[in-house]
Amino acid sequence: MDPKVINFIEQNKDRFVEELKSFLRIPSVSTDPQHKRDVRKCAEYAASELKRIGMQHVQVCETAGHPIVYAAWLGTPGRPTALLYGHYDVQPIDPIELWHSPPFEPEIRNGEIYARGAADDKGQVFMHFKSLEAHLRNTGKLPVNFKILIEGEEECGSPNLDQFIREHREMLQADVVVISDTPMFARGVPSICYGLRGLVYFQIDLVGTSSDLHSGSFGGTVANPAFVLCRLLGNMKNEEGRVTIPGFYDDVRPLTERERREYASLPFDAERYRKELGAPQLWGEMGYSPLEQIWARPTFEINGILGGFTGEGAKTVIPAKTMAKVSMRLVPDQDPDKIARLFEDHVRKVCPPSVELRITRMHGGKAWLAPIDHPAMKAAGRAYEKGFGKKPVFVREGGSIPVVSTFTELLNVPCVLIGIGLPDENAHAPNEKLDLGNFHGGILSTAYLYEELANVA
Amino acid sequence: MDPKVINFIEQNKDRFVEELKSFLRIPSVSTDPQHKRDVRKCAEYAASELKRIGMQHVQVCETAGHPIVYAAWLGTPGRPTALLYGHYDVQPIDPIELWHSPPFEPEIRNGEIYARGAADDKGQVFMHFKSLEAHLRNTGKLPVNFKILIEGEEECGSPNLDQFIREHREMLQADVVVISDTPMFARGVPSICYGLRGLVYFQIDLVGTSSDLHSGSFGGTVANPAFVLCRLLGNMKNEEGRVTIPGFYDDVRPLTERERREYASLPFDAERYRKELGAPQLWGEMGYSPLEQIWARPTFEINGILGGFTGEGAKTVIPAKTMAKVSMRLVPDQDPDKIARLFEDHVRKVCPPSVELRITRMHGGKAWLAPIDHPAMKAAGRAYEKGFGKKPVFVREGGSIPVVSTFTELLNVPCVLIGIGLPDENAHAPNEKLDLGNFHGGILSTAYLYEELANVA
Repeated sequence: MDPKVINFIEQNKDRFVEELKSFLRIPSVSTDPQHKRDVRKCAEYAASELKRIGMQHVQVCETAGHPIVYAAWLGTPGRPTALLYGHYDVQPIDPIELWHSPPFEPEIRNGEIYARGAADDKGQVFMHFKSLEAHLRNTGKLPVNFKILIEGEEECGSPNLDQFIREHREMLQADVVVISDTPMFARGVPSICYGLRGLVYFQIDLVGTSSDLHSGSFGGTVANPAFVLCRLLGNMKNEEGRVTIPGFYDDVRPLTERERREYASLPFDAERYRKELGAPQLWGEMGYSPLEQIWARPTFEINGILGGFTGEGAKTVIPAKTMAKVSMRLVPDQDPDKIARLFEDHVRKVCPPSVELRITRMHGGKAWLAPIDHPAMKAAGRAYEKGFGKKPVFVREGGSIPVVSTFTELLNVPCVLIGIGLPDENAHAPNEKLDLGNFHGGILSTAYLYEELANVA
Repeated sequence: MDPKVINFIEQNKDRFVEELKSFLRIPSVSTDPQHKRDVRKCAEYAASELKRIGMQHVQVCETAGHPIVYAAWLGTPGRPTALLYGHYDVQPIDPIELWHSPPFEPEIRNGEIYARGAADDKGQVFMHFKSLEAHLRNTGKLPVNFKILIEGEEECGSPNLDQFIREHREMLQADVVVISDTPMFARGVPSICYGLRGLVYFQIDLVGTSSDLHSGSFGGTVANPAFVLCRLLGNMKNEEGRVTIPGFYDDVRPLTERERREYASLPFDAERYRKELGAPQLWGEMGYSPLEQIWARPTFEINGILGGFTGEGAKTVIPAKTMAKVSMRLVPDQDPDKIARLFEDHVRKVCPPSVELRITRMHGGKAWLAPIDHPAMKAAGRAYEKGFGKKPVFVREGGSIPVVSTFTELLNVPCVLIGIGLPDENAHAPNEKLDLGNFHGGILSTAYLYEELANVA
């Protein structure tokens, strides 16, 4: 690679971090209607940054929800085209009281930048902005044709993305998709992700009576919806950590012997992992290691539950209604629609007629698994090795990036998942952060990646 | 009774209601520290009202918590002494959005006054104020010696009342205690309550990890405290509606055949009851009628539950912690301390080591059962008949008034529970109200009650 590109990346580290801060300051919480304007502001900021670094065809595209930012540089005809996907929206910030510094006032402590979106995904999107800038500023061009699609609805399930991709298939057509929205396996262990879990997410509402009741005057004669909900959800997994929904495991693709062997050889310390999470004990599906549980086994989780009196003190009510948000992480080859149907059928069957039940399906997506010997995967491996001085490992990720399946299906191209977050960086939790060493290593790696992709496809 | 007393009660109806409104306007929510001043203001208001109507020895007595209002009229030596107990504090108001008119701006609709505390217990306390006023204003005296103790902590479990009674045993000594804090059996069915359920109340906190976790990146390897809580609470009652805590039913006094017969003869329409509550179906311990379930059978209820993300939209977290408020209604001869111990032991036993458990015992009290052939009970029956023109029925109440046990034990005197609320008046729920016809009938009945008690003990 042109030494000017490498030097530029080395010499502008501090400026890059200052610029990242500006991006992180915009509270682009996509699930909260109150932040609608901030989300747009963030899209416009990203667009203006892309123009500034020399990208062309920059557009803020309207959707039925939050806008999508598009840009392209198509100055090297005949060479392959890469499409970068990322998102500029962020998770909600609550519980706000657990943040040590305000979530939208980025603060650097011990070489890490703390802010909502630092790791997921603004920091990783911005890393590409800077590697693109390094090429364009110093060589006047990019090694490949390059398209960028950055959406503002990833954290609410990308409700308008599929349609956008369908309607702009030609504009988005590429030979490979690059996504940086996954963590490295561990500090100092660069990783390429070849598998993701899928997701189905539901809200369950139960109504028992038309208003809260005095638990003395009425207790014992009516179903308590909070109790019914607990009974219903508490039986969704058995003692062995297995989901009890009939048919749930029917389509689960088993781990191969090779995968089990390779996962076992990764530097994973279960006791250290437990300590980092602050859990008194690990607990999961029996017969699987923690990495297998996260990467290759489906699960059922309660994401939120609410009912009755939850303030200070005591109030002797029977709640009129109660609510839970629940989700299932899926693995290949579980179909989200089928699992959603099995779940709904099961809940309707076990929910007693003493309460009114409403099930609302929210977002979701398919699991994904890529062949690790694809040329694009190998190119990513080489780029990573040059940027971080270390061969990457091939891992899976327990989270879901539904757009990966969308790209695979709609554009029929491979996806390369090259992420530089760390597993303990609190994506989706208070005190989200990003290691600045990885941020800089990622800028260098992705600068190399564009070169490596020039020889692929 | 002196016709002037009766006429006075008849002619001042409207004024009495206007005065009641002033009492209801004071937001004396005792469980909420933010209302501490309002609670005191309410005590002072009650004291000034008692002075105004001619009561003597009026004091606002300090306690470690909210003050107690005391008053006495001891002008008829040799005659019995009655002690009125009531409370001027009220339940919290949430969920506020379900109120049709503001809880502390009393509003009359269809002959009912809507306000927090209207039925429980300000309206019923104020009814006595007005019957006392009727006697004192028109005859210059009361038929019996009369003491008043009105506390401000009933809704948070009367934490300082027992000590106050112990320390003021002489000041409070009486021949009979009168309490108006229970509902009538139904509209047009005046009732005297001879039994109450007891209570034990707990908060359970479970902590899984030190912060909320991304359910994709970590889901499947750690216990979800919301799931553990659901499993734990969902198993507290079985399919037959019976509490599963070992030993829970050991000391339950069975219903007598006579009680079952008498309850069955009361004008209770289960289908109408179900409709009034808005429940799709009634549900309770198998083998018992609804009245038996409420009055004579213990139960377990979840009063509140909270954990994880409960806002709009979807957030894929595993909550770090979760909380539930739970309580058990007890019947004779269950001992609250013993039941609390059984509960705690059971929870500690079934809670898995994958979460941290904290159990906090909150307020509670013993159940109570009085002999219905006691002279004081009979006196109350006659007074009620004169005031409402109808023989009262003897009923129990599913709620708890722990002070009844305290009086029975500490002062060793009978308690007469003569209440004029109605079962559907939303005590402890939004849109609490009081029927003004019963308010006026109650003023007349209690004016008669003081006369009847003159011949008792």
